[in-house]
Amino acid sequence: MIITIGREFGSGGRELGRRLSEILGIAYYDQEIITEIARRTDLSERYVQEMSEKRPMYNTFPIHTGRSFYYMQNSPLNLSFSIFQEQSAIIREMAKKSDCVIVGRCADDVLRESNPFRIFVYAEMESRLKRCRQKAPKDEHLSDKEMIANIRRIDKNRSRYYELYTGKTWGDRLLYDLCINTTRIPVEDAAAMTAKIVKK
Amino acid sequence: MIITIGREFGSGGRELGRRLSEILGIAYYDQEIITEIARRTDLSERYVQEMSEKRPMYNTFPIHTGRSFYYMQNSPLNLSFSIFQEQSAIIREMAKKSDCVIVGRCADDVLRESNPFRIFVYAEMESRLKRCRQKAPKDEHLSDKEMIANIRRIDKNRSRYYELYTGKTWGDRLLYDLCINTTRIPVEDAAAMTAKIVKK
Repeated sequence: MIITIGREFGSGGRELGRRLSEILGIAYYDQEIITEIARRTDLSERYVQEMSEKRPMYNTFPIHTGRSFYYMQNSPLNLSFSIFQEQSAIIREMAKKSDCVIVGRCADDVLRESNPFRIFVYAEMESRLKRCRQKAPKDEHLSDKEMIANIRRIDKNRSRYYELYTGKTWGDRLLYDLCINTTRIPVEDAAAMTAKIVKK
Repeated sequence: MIITIGREFGSGGRELGRRLSEILGIAYYDQEIITEIARRTDLSERYVQEMSEKRPMYNTFPIHTGRSFYYMQNSPLNLSFSIFQEQSAIIREMAKKSDCVIVGRCADDVLRESNPFRIFVYAEMESRLKRCRQKAPKDEHLSDKEMIANIRRIDKNRSRYYELYTGKTWGDRLLYDLCINTTRIPVEDAAAMTAKIVKK
């Protein structure tokens, strides 16, 4: 049983994944993947995190490079591809080891041969803004406008990243078994509902 | 409790609606709406049916006009708008009378002030083709290619009709609370799942 979750930023997709894994009693992979890539490559977790959410840019160079790393001889684009390949290999290993929920990272496409149950989570902007506010650090003082700009930027990066590595359109309903709007459906209900369907 | 269902042709949306209404023990409106419009306007049911799935064309004229009907003084476009207005009034009356499931007919938009639970049902073409084959009359001998062309044409009409009367994009995920792909999720499971969520 493998479940992949694509999600708009601030829609509660990560929370859904965590709850779903708890209900089903299966593994939940998220930060673990980043940690494993960082371990294998000597890049910093933060850098890997950034590279695995954004489409690589030709005109930017890594700021933090960790220790020695042979990919560094190459362009950021190649580095990004290498990280993606490493990440995909790790995802496949993890999915082989046990049932799991994987959030983001094009896992729906990477694991397509295992026929995962594919969820996409989204919500209206107002709802996402509210969720982001609740999670924001106390010392962050962004206006609504700034926060919405951030949300849009992050989604744009996710969308471009997904398109670059899968050749498909992020959020296209046909790529998912279930698309859940968390504006009115509470995440805990969405998790309970999805667990029922997946267990069938 | 009002549930609206938009659906791609052949995706099982109507069946989902029927099952959902049975589980929840609430009314299911589909053909009843057409019958009621026909009764109120003296247009034939078949004609009303056609007019309420297609965007009106300027260059076609009604073939079947029933008996006297004052809208007939006007163009097909006006007639189509009049039918839509009549239909919307009926939908609002029905939704006021009792909890219900309504399939198609822009009901999500018509009833937006009642805050309905909005579902969109879709599926991969292969799955829709299979479903259409199962439901096709025995004496229908269409090739796969012809059937797919039919499915695409009907969806195009639904999409244009929806856009004309709501100004919104048919199937746009943000217009729905839940989008269900029936390629892998059986309709009975989808109905049971949705009933749980809606009852909350």
